[in-house]
Formats: sequence, structure tokens, C-alpha cells
Amino acid sequence: MRRGLFVGRFQPPHYGHFHALKWIVEKGGVDEVVVVIGSAQESHTLRNPFTAGERFEMLLRGLRETLGSSQGFIIAPVPDIAMNFVWTRYLEMLLPSFDVVFTRNPLVARLFEEYGYEVRMQPAFDREVYSATRIREMMLRGDARWRELVPSSVAEYIESIGGVERLRRLAGGD
Amino acid sequence: MRRGLFVGRFQPPHYGHFHALKWIVEKGGVDEVVVVIGSAQESHTLRNPFTAGERFEMLLRGLRETLGSSQGFIIAPVPDIAMNFVWTRYLEMLLPSFDVVFTRNPLVARLFEEYGYEVRMQPAFDREVYSATRIREMMLRGDARWRELVPSSVAEYIESIGGVERLRRLAGGD
Amino acid sequence: MRRGLFVGRFQPPHYGHFHALKWIVEKGGVDEVVVVIGSAQESHTLRNPFTAGERFEMLLRGLRETLGSSQGFIIAPVPDIAMNFVWTRYLEMLLPSFDVVFTRNPLVARLFEEYGYEVRMQPAFDREVYSATRIREMMLRGDARWRELVPSSVAEYIESIGGVERLRRLAGGD
Amino acid sequence: MRRGLFVGRFQPPHYGHFHALKWIVEKGGVDEVVVVIGSAQESHTLRNPFTAGERFEMLLRGLRETLGSSQGFIIAPVPDIAMNFVWTRYLEMLLPSFDVVFTRNPLVARLFEEYGYEVRMQPAFDREVYSATRIREMMLRGDARWRELVPSSVAEYIESIGGVERLRRLAGGD
Amino acid sequence: MRRGLFVGRFQPPHYGHFHALKWIVEKGGVDEVVVVIGSAQESHTLRNPFTAGERFEMLLRGLRETLGSSQGFIIAPVPDIAMNFVWTRYLEMLLPSFDVVFTRNPLVARLFEEYGYEVRMQPAFDREVYSATRIREMMLRGDARWRELVPSSVAEYIESIGGVERLRRLAGGD
Amino acid sequence: MRRGLFVGRFQPPHYGHFHALKWIVEKGGVDEVVVVIGSAQESHTLRNPFTAGERFEMLLRGLRETLGSSQGFIIAPVPDIAMNFVWTRYLEMLLPSFDVVFTRNPLVARLFEEYGYEVRMQPAFDREVYSATRIREMMLRGDARWRELVPSSVAEYIESIGGVERLRRLAGGD
Repeated sequence: MRRGLFVGRFQPPHYGHFHALKWIVEKGGVDEVVVVIGSAQESHTLRNPFTAGERFEMLLRGLRETLGSSQGFIIAPVPDIAMNFVWTRYLEMLLPSFDVVFTRNPLVARLFEEYGYEVRMQPAFDREVYSATRIREMMLRGDARWRELVPSSVAEYIESIGGVERLRRLAGGD
Repeated sequence: MRRGLFVGRFQPPHYGHFHALKWIVEKGGVDEVVVVIGSAQESHTLRNPFTAGERFEMLLRGLRETLGSSQGFIIAPVPDIAMNFVWTRYLEMLLPSFDVVFTRNPLVARLFEEYGYEVRMQPAFDREVYSATRIREMMLRGDARWRELVPSSVAEYIESIGGVERLRRLAGGD
Repeated sequence: MRRGLFVGRFQPPHYGHFHALKWIVEKGGVDEVVVVIGSAQESHTLRNPFTAGERFEMLLRGLRETLGSSQGFIIAPVPDIAMNFVWTRYLEMLLPSFDVVFTRNPLVARLFEEYGYEVRMQPAFDREVYSATRIREMMLRGDARWRELVPSSVAEYIESIGGVERLRRLAGGD
Repeated sequence: MRRGLFVGRFQPPHYGHFHALKWIVEKGGVDEVVVVIGSAQESHTLRNPFTAGERFEMLLRGLRETLGSSQGFIIAPVPDIAMNFVWTRYLEMLLPSFDVVFTRNPLVARLFEEYGYEVRMQPAFDREVYSATRIREMMLRGDARWRELVPSSVAEYIESIGGVERLRRLAGGD
Repeated sequence: MRRGLFVGRFQPPHYGHFHALKWIVEKGGVDEVVVVIGSAQESHTLRNPFTAGERFEMLLRGLRETLGSSQGFIIAPVPDIAMNFVWTRYLEMLLPSFDVVFTRNPLVARLFEEYGYEVRMQPAFDREVYSATRIREMMLRGDARWRELVPSSVAEYIESIGGVERLRRLAGGD
Repeated sequence: MRRGLFVGRFQPPHYGHFHALKWIVEKGGVDEVVVVIGSAQESHTLRNPFTAGERFEMLLRGLRETLGSSQGFIIAPVPDIAMNFVWTRYLEMLLPSFDVVFTRNPLVARLFEEYGYEVRMQPAFDREVYSATRIREMMLRGDARWRELVPSSVAEYIESIGGVERLRRLAGGD
């Protein structure tokens, strides 16, 4: 049994994330993936509109829609710890063991390399298109095409919790 | 889709826990169970010898052994927050939504009742026999029959990480 | 304008507290009293059953009943800080300025003396009778005479929130 | 008895705040107002120059000057909690109960609406003129007319603690 | 350059500590010793009467008295982190690098062994006699012979800060 | 015995710092200097690339190189506390006593002045040249002349831990 680690903020999870997760289980040489919902304490800001629980729901639904099942994925919300050097060990404390870290984030890569882990970079999937920042901007300016960037079950969930309205309200609009 | 919540420290998870989880999915009227590994920051003490990550592993293995699969169970490590009144909402922040709380713990029951949740008590499964406190005591005094109180995959995992030795060492022995 | 400081946990506030506060405003040589609800993060335990907000309500009601008004009292909930040496300055940070500390608690007295404050001891008012510990014990064993130890508005408030039931439930009873 | 909640940072409290508080007690349909001094841990920065204790003093003095008394106002310093979703419940933990929230802040409004509270917007009182940001800027550039934007008792208090000098010093001047 | 690590609470530092430190530099095969003042946030309790700063002073004076100099010792106050598993890495984050850990504490030994460090046990120096617990008990019951258990410079420092009086006051005496 | 306090982030320590420390011991009228490594929890960011432990090493080496010895300097890593007003007392809690504060930082100066300490300003040593910000910028853009701004033992240490590579990696380069 070999496990990979994948860390994201998922504000919100989009096709870029799901493509990456699919690639990791199919081509990353691992049997399971531990998916960390980072900055789990954050929500209701322009940069982090959704709670960790909401992001957890979106990941479960998105995995089921895009991969048929969430099996093989272990999802865990992880609040930030304000000490980068210690963060890798804090993850080890909280999570089932993992063997390799998949990331394109320079900080995550560096921290795990210095800590002695194998770090691999999954391919990028149209990062200019599939970007959580871009999705939040589209939501803010009322561009409904953000729905095309996430699985439809994720879009429906976001609507069911009034997610777009929340974001716009936080921006001072409406 | 209806979800139950089940909270434990799982130091370590034993047949009492797995019986309870089996009962909840079979007779508790829920489709999925969110299993919280509480006091996730604790480890390496006589009362909390195992890390949350180790307990996460044990739960995954024990569920697979006793129920055939960990499907239908969403496991999440949750560090303590030093404010009982706020703890229920903190769980809501971190976890996928749940509808009913299963517990025999008076504090957990009271907190969720006051917060407005339905709280149900799963049946007790031989609590004098299946008790994490009792297991830790057996480990400490060298009574190997603790292995009979946990699924064999959990016992093997504990041995693979030197869990009994750790506990005895912390007690000042060896 | 001269102010006194009075710190308590108020679990719950009782005649001993209200006598002390009356003495301080009448004979303590101060115009106002800053009343700190200490350990404000604690609730729902046998030692700290009530939230800071509930204790705040009880203080307001008890002062109005016993002294006719809460005027002259400035009440503030203060969460613990896990550094005794720093706690005095933390209180200065949070509270309007005060000139003298009234306390019978050795730790509070010592900390403020070392920090340079005048510390005075108000008289004890039947401490064997008027004691929050004793009130909680009476509540736990079903002795209704605890009501005689607190102002009736406080007793009524405790009943309105199911306070006795909460305490007994936390003890594992009922 | 019906209570309103009003949250501010009060860096410093000015006529805009006092007008709002006056409107709330006179026309907001409440008997008392719980006034939260937010970000109570902050001080000595350009954005948050004053301690919570200093802001507490200013509120007491300003209420007495502008409304004749601080009666009917319950003031409480509240340190930030780094979890927006949990913040509403944290306030419930610390404060006497309240029924309606008065705010013009989009985040505060959204958080309390999602939590189930009635949220009302008090009228704006010349927000371009009465603004704490503007007052701090005037202080920084040596424009003494900031005094006209706060009750004179507040201005005097700020001078008595060297508040303007503090702000300018922090900006690297003098 | 080879460094050892030595962790203590030093409440207060006594001949047992100084003997151990002497042994480590003379026979422990290291050039320097990093001395951690643990539980640095604690003070003014019966178990932890002295601040980290006071303990720092005592260590400096005691080393100069017993070893002629504090050279070769790097002393650092370290507040607790409430996660045992992470604590070793937290120390690595804060301290100059070290190669070997000297301890007789089972928890410290186990944590560093699991983290991959060499752990050695310095000889015990009359632990029934030289014990901080015993010193605090002697102070509490007025037995002046505690002075014989610490270097005289440490005893003088404790007296200069009213340390014995503090301890007795905290115990409710005097 | 008279001690000075000097606080810095030392990201990294450079000749400006060592000149200042030299001036303080030679002309500042103190026998020893307590050197605080501030923001000790920070590392692996563009603004704070080095851990407190690494900065501790650099200070020790740099002092030995530039002043011949680290004697007379007491170095302590101090994690931030998110309360400016309380920070001075927090330092008193952690550190050996000091008599005078040497700083050119307006916040540090103001906080200690308000707390009652003597604050002195050491001379500036070519601040446009010797600046940690400038050193980090040179590292980022591959300008090897940053080595001229720090003692050679510090430059060697930074290279031995791959410090420049770390910084560039964090910036997303390489």
C-alpha cells in the first residue's frame, strides 16, 4: 500500500483539482491519496469564502461525479499552524502515513523536500482556465460561466448554500 | 442522504467502537457516518498514547476488517478547542454536514442537544470488557490479552509501530 | 474617579460575591468596580458549568436585585491566558483603568502586588456557607436549598436555562 | 427585555458611533445594547493604535457625554478568534443574550444572518466625515480638527494618554 | 563541533542539574550544550513558581559559580506546545542544531528516539536529595536547608526576588 | 551588572547588526546584551526565510567572527505574541532582567517607553547598504555580492543549508 499526499485550499475545488487527483491515482504510482483541506479555519472572506466542511462536501461530490467514487481518497480538514518548519510534522501527526507528496506549490514542495519526503509534480491542467481565484472573480462579477469550471454537483452544492450570494455580500455588494 | 456523527478519542479503537459503528450504519437510520478522532493534538501520554494519524490508520484497518470496507465512513482528525460551548459549531465548520449525533458521552450529548441536534444513544457493547482504558492498562502490565479486544489488523498495526513499548516507556518502565 | 478591580469565576455568582461587591462600593473607597468574569472560555464542566455570557446575565440580575442597580459596575468576560506573569498586563490591556485590586485569592493578590498594584482584602462573608463549590455540590445531589445562597433572580435564571439539569447531566446522571 | 448587539473596533470611537448607538436605543426597538470592542488584542499599530481598555474608557466617557449616561449599554472587549464561522457562537458564549444585530459591516451581517439572527442596518451618519480611518489620518498629518469628530471627553482622554504622539511615533515620525 | 541538548523545567535549578551539565560537557562527548528552559510560559504556581526569565538568571549564575563560566552553554526559554509528537521539531525550529539528547525523562527520551536522535542518559546524582520538588516542599514548610541543595548564587537570587515568600503566599499561607 | 536588550528578526543577521551589537557593548554602557530573535515561529517565506534556530547559529558564528567571542551576549528565540501591549511583559517573563533597550524600531521603542524602560538609539550603520531586505533581494536576483554584507561565517552557513536556493524556490523560481 502506497499513499500520496495532496494539499489544497479548494476555494472551491474545480476541474483542475479533480484532473490532478485522477492523474495521481492513475499514473502517480499510489494506491490511495490523502487530500488535505488546508486553511481549514478560514471562511467567509473573499479569498476563502467556504468553510472546510463545505469544501469537504464539494470534494466528496466532485470525486463521485468525476471519478465515480471517493474510494481511495482520504480527505482531512487541517487548520493552519503558524510555523512553516513544523507544518510537515504536524501533518504527519494528524494523517495516516503517506509516501510521496504531489504538489505544484513551491512552499509545500520545499518544506517536504527539506523534511526528507519524495516530492513529485503532477502535470498542470490548463491553469489559466481552471483556477479558484478566477472562479471567485467570475462569481463576484456575476459571470455564470464559473459553473463550467467545476463539476456540476459542486456547482449545485455551491448554489444550495448560497455561495455566490455570500461572496458578493462579503465584497460589500448587493 | 442522512449522516450520523460519532466522536471518540480511539486510544486505541477497539471492538466496542466497531460494534457501535456497525450498529449505527445498520440500525441507526443513516447512510454515512462522520467519525471524529478527537483530541487529535494529543499523543505520547499514558492516557493518549497514539497520534491522530496512527488512530486514523487503525480506524481504516479496523473498519475494513470488521465491516469489509471503510466506505460510508468519513474519518476526520479534530484538535481540541478549549471552549466547550463553541465546540459543536467548530465541528460544523470542519466537517461535512450531519443530521444526528450518536454518543454515550454525557458532555457530547449535552452540547449537541443544547445546540439543537438530535442525539441518540447507540447500545453499549460490553463496556466493562471493551474499554480503551482497560486495554492501556493491560498493555502496561504486560497482559497480552489486550489483543483480543481489538481487530487483529489493529493489533498488528500497534505492534508494527512499537505501541506497547511506547506506552511502557512513557510509564517509566523498561 | 477611583476604580477597584474584582475578579471571579462566578460559577455561579452567589450572596458571598454580592456582599463583597456591596462592601467594595460602600466601604472600599472606590467609585466604580470593574468585575472580571474569569475563565470566560470555560463552560459545561462540573467545575465550570456556566458560560461567561450566562454568568454575565446572572451578575447583572443579581446586582440589580441586591443593590438596586448595576450602575457603578463594569463587567467584562476575560478568557484565560496561559501565562500568570503576563496576566496582569493582559487585564490592563482589556479593561478600563483601575487603581486597587480587591481579592481574597492568593494568586491574584500576589500577581498584582508584584506588578505594583495596591491589593486589599475585602471581608469574608460566611465562606463555609456562601461558596460556589458548595452550590454546585448541592445542585448535583438534588438539594434545592442552593436557591437560598443566590439572589432569587439568579436562581430563576439558572432554572430558565436548565442549569441544574445541565450539571447533573454532565455528571453522568439522569 | 430586548437587547441589540453592536460590534466595532472603535479606533477611536467617534460621533458616527455615538449617533448609531443613540439611534439604536431610541429607534431600534431594544432596551439595552451590548457593545463589543472587537479586535481587543490589537493596539499600537497604525490601524489599531488604542488598547481595548483605552477604547473601553473612551466609550464610557463618550456615552456619558453624548447620551448623559452609559446605562443601557453593556460594553465588552472581545479578542479576535481566527475562525469567522465560529465567531458568532463565540460571541454568544461571552456575552449576555441579545436578540438583534445592528451593523453596516457586510461580514458581521452575513455571519449573523447565516447563524439565524435578525440583522438590521442602522442609518449611516455622514460616513465620509465621521470615520475612524479619517481621524487617524488627520492625527498622523497633524490636522487638529480630528477633535471635532469625537466627543470632547474622548478627545481629552486621547490627549491624556498621548494618543496622537503614539500614532505619529509608530508611523516613524518625530 | 558537536552539541548536546538538555531539557528541564528548572523550578529551581539545583546541584543535580549542575552536576548533570558538568558531566555532559566533561564526559558526554560534546563541545557545547543547548539548555532548554521548558514550560517557559509557566510561573507563580506551586509546581512552577519561577518565570523562565528568573530560571534563566539562576542557570547563568549557577553555571558561573559551579563551572566557572557559562561558556559552552546555550540557554533558551521554550514555551510548551500542546502537541508531543511535534515538540521535537518545534525545538529544532527554535534552537541551534544539536547532535545528541541527554535526558533521564522517559517522555523526552521516547520522543527524540522516535524522531531519530541519539539519546543518552547522564548518571543520576542523588535524585532523592537533589530534587526540585523536594526543594519546593522544603521552602513551603519553612525548612531553610533547601539552600544547601542549590549553588549559593542561586539561593541568593531566589531570596532577592522573594521567591520563598512567593511560594508560600501562593499556597495560601502567610 | 547592567544589561541591554536588542531585538531583531535577523533574516539574516548582517554587518549592520554586528556593528550595532559591538557599539552597544563598547559604548552603550552595559556589561551584557540580551539578543532576542523575534518572530521565532516564522520561516520559509520570502520575508522570513530562515528558522529561528538557523538565525541563532548565524548570530553565534557572526559574533565569534566579528567580536572574537559570543561572550557577553545572551541570545534567545522568542515567538510572536499577538498583543503588542503585552509583548514587553512577555519578554520580561522569558528573559533575564535587562535595564535598557537599544532599538531604532519605532514600535519597539514606543512599547518599552510606555512600559517605563529607558530606550536608547544606537547609531545607524549604513542602513541603505546593510539591510536584510536588500540581502534577500540580492539573493533572489542572483547577485552574489550579498556575501559582502554578512560575516563570511554567516555566508558559509547560509550556503551550507542551501539558504539561497530555498529563497529562490519559495519565490517560485528554479
